[in-house]
Amino acid sequence: MRNILPHSVEVMSSLLSTLPSIGPKTANRLTFFLLGRQVSELEEFSEAFANLKKNLVTCSNCYLIAETNPCILCQDKTREQARLVVVEEPLDVLALEKAHFNGLYHVLGGQISPINNVSPDNLKIKELLSRLETGQFTEVILATDPSLEGEATALYINDQVSQAQKEGHLKGIKITRIARGLPVGGDLEYADELTLARALEGRQSYTVRGN
Amino acid sequence: MRNILPHSVEVMSSLLSTLPSIGPKTANRLTFFLLGRQVSELEEFSEAFANLKKNLVTCSNCYLIAETNPCILCQDKTREQARLVVVEEPLDVLALEKAHFNGLYHVLGGQISPINNVSPDNLKIKELLSRLETGQFTEVILATDPSLEGEATALYINDQVSQAQKEGHLKGIKITRIARGLPVGGDLEYADELTLARALEGRQSYTVRGN
Repeated sequence: MRNILPHSVEVMSSLLSTLPSIGPKTANRLTFFLLGRQVSELEEFSEAFANLKKNLVTCSNCYLIAETNPCILCQDKTREQARLVVVEEPLDVLALEKAHFNGLYHVLGGQISPINNVSPDNLKIKELLSRLETGQFTEVILATDPSLEGEATALYINDQVSQAQKEGHLKGIKITRIARGLPVGGDLEYADELTLARALEGRQSYTVRGN
Repeated sequence: MRNILPHSVEVMSSLLSTLPSIGPKTANRLTFFLLGRQVSELEEFSEAFANLKKNLVTCSNCYLIAETNPCILCQDKTREQARLVVVEEPLDVLALEKAHFNGLYHVLGGQISPINNVSPDNLKIKELLSRLETGQFTEVILATDPSLEGEATALYINDQVSQAQKEGHLKGIKITRIARGLPVGGDLEYADELTLARALEGRQSYTVRGN
């Protein structure tokens, strides 16, 4: 089909359709929505894209994307310095902050996934181990995704940390895994069998919660 | 919650979440996807936004968004000059072009919708009538959406054109409505009752199609 739409419209539409979860039809719809916006708003978008990666660094401590190194979270001495949560991605940090976690983070940069050619060496696991050696952590909470790859990644890190403890490089660090169970507000009837099995396994004494 | 993400990331995310069908979580995910792209690609996006509305005009003939006035479709004398399709939006033109329609278009700019404060005066209906008076059209195909508002818009235009024909301003123009029926590849069993009723109403003699 001949291009009957203006060049700038075609360009926008084809760029938007390269984004995840945006197909050609959605891209067209978004483009026409944007055509209805003020030029000043389009300029805001333009600047946001031009500036997105300017002045960004990766925190050399926790590997979160940041404007300063170390990042504001690592700099914040009011946070619990003894508790470290290991996550896959920066967005996981955001989610945990919303859940009012107040310790420190370690961003792996992904999950072990042979099918996607991601081996432990591609993740910040060695960096995690040396951070544990030098830091004053008492607990490492493995908060990788509750998926096949996330569980494998947690297992691998657990093995590595246990090994280091056996060899005497690390001492007195408790390794925990974030709980898997029924999502709050969920419905037991609709829970899948794996989640339900995990929820049973991870059951807790009722009086403990009452204290 | 405090902003723990870099300012440029927050800005991008909040801009993206102003787009239709993109909520705050999708906006975050898109932003982190964009962080993984090359700076040169982000600059392409930046330019596309800056240039989107540059050099765009509305064709004063058919009201399609275009780079020239009249637009390339109105300029194209190889198209059937006697047949005019009336549509709501520029994207409808794109869809009809894909379906190999080869006549001319008239873009209304929306549909009559009292609930959204869109009256006939907000659409290019007067412009359609004067275009019909001066043009050499023999058929007007009303291709507004098969929705409540689309049908009301088609009905209103039909009334206006019929009135003008009665008053003698227009002559010999056939008004047709695009067929509503079962979508090709669809399943009769799953069709809703309104579509099915329309499909029965609009049934055609089998031999006619065979000729």
